[in-house]
Amino acid sequence: MRHTLSVLVENSPGALSRIAGLFSGRGFNIESLCVAPTLDPTMSHLTLSTSGDDQIIEQIIKQLNRLVDVYKVVDVSEGEFVEREMALIKVKAEDDTRAEVLRMSDIFRCKIVDVSPKTYTLEVTGPESKIKAVVELLKPLGIKEMAKTGTIAMLREKKTI
Amino acid sequence: MRHTLSVLVENSPGALSRIAGLFSGRGFNIESLCVAPTLDPTMSHLTLSTSGDDQIIEQIIKQLNRLVDVYKVVDVSEGEFVEREMALIKVKAEDDTRAEVLRMSDIFRCKIVDVSPKTYTLEVTGPESKIKAVVELLKPLGIKEMAKTGTIAMLREKKTI
Repeated sequence: MRHTLSVLVENSPGALSRIAGLFSGRGFNIESLCVAPTLDPTMSHLTLSTSGDDQIIEQIIKQLNRLVDVYKVVDVSEGEFVEREMALIKVKAEDDTRAEVLRMSDIFRCKIVDVSPKTYTLEVTGPESKIKAVVELLKPLGIKEMAKTGTIAMLREKKTI
Repeated sequence: MRHTLSVLVENSPGALSRIAGLFSGRGFNIESLCVAPTLDPTMSHLTLSTSGDDQIIEQIIKQLNRLVDVYKVVDVSEGEFVEREMALIKVKAEDDTRAEVLRMSDIFRCKIVDVSPKTYTLEVTGPESKIKAVVELLKPLGIKEMAKTGTIAMLREKKTI
């Protein structure tokens, strides 16, 4: 099963290297990763998506917690959560396909962030499955380039007060 | 100056660890990082934002190119480019602030991705400066939690045909 871990780490040059080393050394798999600064400049926020059975995930969390740079690890996918990623997709848009690209863009609520005589660049956000669907549908029209962030996630607020 | 590097690497457990090690070992700074799979499952796409003078950036690119897992390094910020990041922001939305949060969300074209009796979760995309502006304006209303992707970037298509 796919798990998304939210990790608060010290903003030090070695922290990422130690975390990546832990994963590669033990053969754990990183599917996607986002590292970004937080409101507090001494800390970074790392969102890591990985897969494995419960035992492996438990091991990963335990090992992460043992690193000195790591303040906190939360397995977001244990509760109810919102998950999003973003992609920039540069698609061919020539006379015969331009209308179709625009239709796709409307249906999936993409934003067009760049236009050239032969291409459109779309920005699309959503859960992983949506991004996959958009990519599959745009492929036949001709994807020239794609850049994707990893997944970020946040626990939903509990509905009971 | 801030540079955004787009790096195509082999999808192997050790690749990220070697790249992170290169940066920490030489004291280069990683401001944000995104790692995500590409259309080709044997490769990963890594977008890395770092800062330094031209000499340091040249060093970083040279060192990256020397790693066996690295297929290609492009300094996107050398040309004209589109740059985007995404944030999920959970804001307090109580009776007296709810209308103001909605106004902000409209102005910055955020999407509301989760609602609870006391909070709204906003999804916002844009260049780093826009995300910063949104965060600054929402801070007084009460940010409960934030998750951010790193920056992703793409070269604009040349306007001449």
